[in-house]
Amino acid sequence: MQLGLIGLGRMGGNMADRIRAAGHEVVGFDHHPDKRDVGSLAELVEKLAAPRVVWTMVPAGEITESTIDQLGELLSDGDLIIDGGNSKFTDDQPRADRLAAKGIGYMDCGVSGGIWGSQNGYALMVGGDAKNVAKAMPIFEALKPAGEFGFVHAGPVGAGHYTKMVHNGIEYGMMQAFAEGWELLEASEYVDNVPGAFKSWREGSVVKSWLLDLFDRALDGDPELAKLKGYAEDTGEGRWTVDEAVRLAVPLHVIAASLFTRFESRQPDSPAMKAVAALRQQFGGHAVIS
Amino acid sequence: MQLGLIGLGRMGGNMADRIRAAGHEVVGFDHHPDKRDVGSLAELVEKLAAPRVVWTMVPAGEITESTIDQLGELLSDGDLIIDGGNSKFTDDQPRADRLAAKGIGYMDCGVSGGIWGSQNGYALMVGGDAKNVAKAMPIFEALKPAGEFGFVHAGPVGAGHYTKMVHNGIEYGMMQAFAEGWELLEASEYVDNVPGAFKSWREGSVVKSWLLDLFDRALDGDPELAKLKGYAEDTGEGRWTVDEAVRLAVPLHVIAASLFTRFESRQPDSPAMKAVAALRQQFGGHAVIS
Amino acid sequence: MQLGLIGLGRMGGNMADRIRAAGHEVVGFDHHPDKRDVGSLAELVEKLAAPRVVWTMVPAGEITESTIDQLGELLSDGDLIIDGGNSKFTDDQPRADRLAAKGIGYMDCGVSGGIWGSQNGYALMVGGDAKNVAKAMPIFEALKPAGEFGFVHAGPVGAGHYTKMVHNGIEYGMMQAFAEGWELLEASEYVDNVPGAFKSWREGSVVKSWLLDLFDRALDGDPELAKLKGYAEDTGEGRWTVDEAVRLAVPLHVIAASLFTRFESRQPDSPAMKAVAALRQQFGGHAVIS
Amino acid sequence: MQLGLIGLGRMGGNMADRIRAAGHEVVGFDHHPDKRDVGSLAELVEKLAAPRVVWTMVPAGEITESTIDQLGELLSDGDLIIDGGNSKFTDDQPRADRLAAKGIGYMDCGVSGGIWGSQNGYALMVGGDAKNVAKAMPIFEALKPAGEFGFVHAGPVGAGHYTKMVHNGIEYGMMQAFAEGWELLEASEYVDNVPGAFKSWREGSVVKSWLLDLFDRALDGDPELAKLKGYAEDTGEGRWTVDEAVRLAVPLHVIAASLFTRFESRQPDSPAMKAVAALRQQFGGHAVIS
Repeated sequence: MQLGLIGLGRMGGNMADRIRAAGHEVVGFDHHPDKRDVGSLAELVEKLAAPRVVWTMVPAGEITESTIDQLGELLSDGDLIIDGGNSKFTDDQPRADRLAAKGIGYMDCGVSGGIWGSQNGYALMVGGDAKNVAKAMPIFEALKPAGEFGFVHAGPVGAGHYTKMVHNGIEYGMMQAFAEGWELLEASEYVDNVPGAFKSWREGSVVKSWLLDLFDRALDGDPELAKLKGYAEDTGEGRWTVDEAVRLAVPLHVIAASLFTRFESRQPDSPAMKAVAALRQQFGGHAVIS
Repeated sequence: MQLGLIGLGRMGGNMADRIRAAGHEVVGFDHHPDKRDVGSLAELVEKLAAPRVVWTMVPAGEITESTIDQLGELLSDGDLIIDGGNSKFTDDQPRADRLAAKGIGYMDCGVSGGIWGSQNGYALMVGGDAKNVAKAMPIFEALKPAGEFGFVHAGPVGAGHYTKMVHNGIEYGMMQAFAEGWELLEASEYVDNVPGAFKSWREGSVVKSWLLDLFDRALDGDPELAKLKGYAEDTGEGRWTVDEAVRLAVPLHVIAASLFTRFESRQPDSPAMKAVAALRQQFGGHAVIS
Repeated sequence: MQLGLIGLGRMGGNMADRIRAAGHEVVGFDHHPDKRDVGSLAELVEKLAAPRVVWTMVPAGEITESTIDQLGELLSDGDLIIDGGNSKFTDDQPRADRLAAKGIGYMDCGVSGGIWGSQNGYALMVGGDAKNVAKAMPIFEALKPAGEFGFVHAGPVGAGHYTKMVHNGIEYGMMQAFAEGWELLEASEYVDNVPGAFKSWREGSVVKSWLLDLFDRALDGDPELAKLKGYAEDTGEGRWTVDEAVRLAVPLHVIAASLFTRFESRQPDSPAMKAVAALRQQFGGHAVIS
Repeated sequence: MQLGLIGLGRMGGNMADRIRAAGHEVVGFDHHPDKRDVGSLAELVEKLAAPRVVWTMVPAGEITESTIDQLGELLSDGDLIIDGGNSKFTDDQPRADRLAAKGIGYMDCGVSGGIWGSQNGYALMVGGDAKNVAKAMPIFEALKPAGEFGFVHAGPVGAGHYTKMVHNGIEYGMMQAFAEGWELLEASEYVDNVPGAFKSWREGSVVKSWLLDLFDRALDGDPELAKLKGYAEDTGEGRWTVDEAVRLAVPLHVIAASLFTRFESRQPDSPAMKAVAALRQQFGGHAVIS
């Protein structure tokens, strides 16, 4: 089938390759002129035969919002937009409503897999109507890994991004668990071969996982991670997961702590610990003056 | 080669099968008369040709300690004891010292893999001298999974149990991450197909892992986990990991929180929250009276 | 001066007494007929001479919002509304804008002190214009404790409720700290006289505080808190504090954990711990079946 | 009465002053020659009439241990040693047993109050026999604040240090709660007068406390804490509290997190966050290279 794909960066570009490799036609647009098949959204829409399916894979937030709004102007009754970016789940239903007024369908699709998805397939989490899911299924089939896993129709519009959000929250917790274990092993005098320990766990152990495989790969290249700074950005998903925990009264000790350690990693000095230092100085005469 | 194996329960019994399947001779002892090959430790030692290798796979603590002490009496110069149980790493060097006085070697081997190890192989984390590791390598080869992973000689005596301890600490964090994500998805109105979401992540996603495979298996049988209580024991390893974090000044937010939630799961009512309720009643007139 | 006061419950009723005791005239309205001075908001407005000052002390959310909207209809250019309830800080500026269109002033005032405020005075945290603050200062003076503390003009509209929100977040953390310490002392075999320990800290110790005084009072009446359930509601402030931490990338380990333990206290069984139990059953055969 | 006091530093020196001000005779020893009344422990013992009471106020650990051992050699049947330092509670009973063999009594006394104790009085938490408590009561009366609070006989030997340990654990949590609240207020655009907010809470508010008074004092001198580094040592008590939580299966989310943030404050770069950065780089191409 034909697919319009907007956003041909690290994720979108690889996805286009995988979809084409499955025998589909991709008409790609990007703001970088050298990657794209068409020079404008209007041209992209023109190149597709109705009913059209257009996939947005651009940065979440304003860019996605304005792209979808422009598509809403250009597309027609019976067409379908799928947002595969990391949009917030609360943006999905309002978009669907706006588009529905013109008869345009909308689905959200959380995409996991990072830079490895092009070869391994992407895990897809979809929110939308069954009819729209069926319409786009050939594309989902092309993107997902071979086999029975890697795709879920999670619920109505919004469920895809919501599922992806929680997926990423879990990912934060798993990464932090490995990170803490590594720090402890490195700090201890008991274990000589820390990279070997992580490598050994890749088969037979309870912590066997793709993240572990990746961590072993990182340690292969830099056994003490000496080339890296202890600095980690967070993405919207981690924050929204904690916001949802607060909204729904769900205790997320581990995921929240994982988010907070990322915040800390970006602080050159901790304001809170200045306050602790101030208190210690006041009652005990202890403090480190900068 | 020949191996004396003490403890033929869920773990030890499966391990004996796997070692035998690899062509080795196992002489097994257990306190249950129907499982064992010999009626006593003395008989076990007698049946093995020197230099002997004896593996203990009994509950950590007093039983392991007394078993090793008895073996110390029965074995001879040049023999080797491997403790594959969940002993605390600080017990290893004292044992090694006691046994060395009689010329008996000692190694510790953390074993991961649960009830699945018999078919998949066990991840083995070994602490001890290179000479002793070499001596027992045929047994390690039989137990570990096929392929390049699943075995590490982590360092001197104690390093095996230490590595296993940290492995389990990481495991606590990963389990809690999945658990929190599942609770949030179940609590939310956005996602209809929660079991389907977890199943989909088994390929292509960043959280792909053996724990996820097991969780999907659990949800297959009981999609809302309605048959289970929210009750989880902890084992020594989780506690020792936090103790080590305290000793070494390593911040383990996630692993400690995972341990604490297990403590909470076993409290019929939370004393701390009674105190919070008491305070709320005092200043605001709020409280739930039992 | 004259004050219109809407809401004569536990907080508002005590505040009215304290304001009157300072020599001011309070015209009170409540939906309970037996407490009120006037039968309607319209009558309240009529009884006050312009320029009027009206204080709302009703439950946050819809009731406050509709009360302020009704007052907006009844009041005139030059009048002033002060919301002393626990409104969310993001509601304040929109209200101020709506009222400004009619020339009505608006301030937010966070009020702390609980049921003790009537005798000790209330801590007041005010957001608004300096001109409006000056106008209401006699009322603030009446409500606040004697002495130099207990009042802050924290910033523009919204700053009062924001400051109160963070105050309550800190309060959550302090309460949880006492609660955890109490649970540990109760659990330990080392200390016989736990209530005596808390009582002793009321003077001379670093943890000397009003919350400690209140906790001692609670233990005086019920030394093991046997009459209470470990159940604690949370209020909007705790949740908004964590939401703000997420928005501003501020790591709030302690305040978030304090909120999460309140969530947990209200769960008859923990879904997350069911998931942990499910995983333990899958890999190790452990689980508690309900 | 007469008291031998060993250790005349910041704490011990102030305590000597307070005891003398109450009319008692203090014979002080310190390793600094200019502060002390006697030149040796032997001389100190000689100057005291039997039955003697000797108070040790020296750094916890080896110095306290060797001081008490030396006193054990010098003192006689019927004498009494009180350790007022920050010893670990598990050291107390072994000391008591060693001294009991010679008929020498032993008590542990946790002391809180910091540099302010000399004027306000010290909070005292005592473990030991009722008979010994009675013998030293005049000294306790001199040290404690006026009024009914500030002293507890918490239980048998060890109970004093245990109570002090938990007290400090609570203190960690309270300090962190204030610190987090301050960081959030500083980070937010809603509040202009952050020092004023903290000052206002000193009366009337639920967070009214001595720590708040001290924090206000710190902000008076340095309103943005610009002169301080976000660096905080921890003392044994915080660590032992978490160790005890682990031993007794008590969930201490807040106190453990407060300890961990102190650990973090002393790390120039976070190893765990390097691991997170490594993982992000592996799956997504994100990382900050040092």
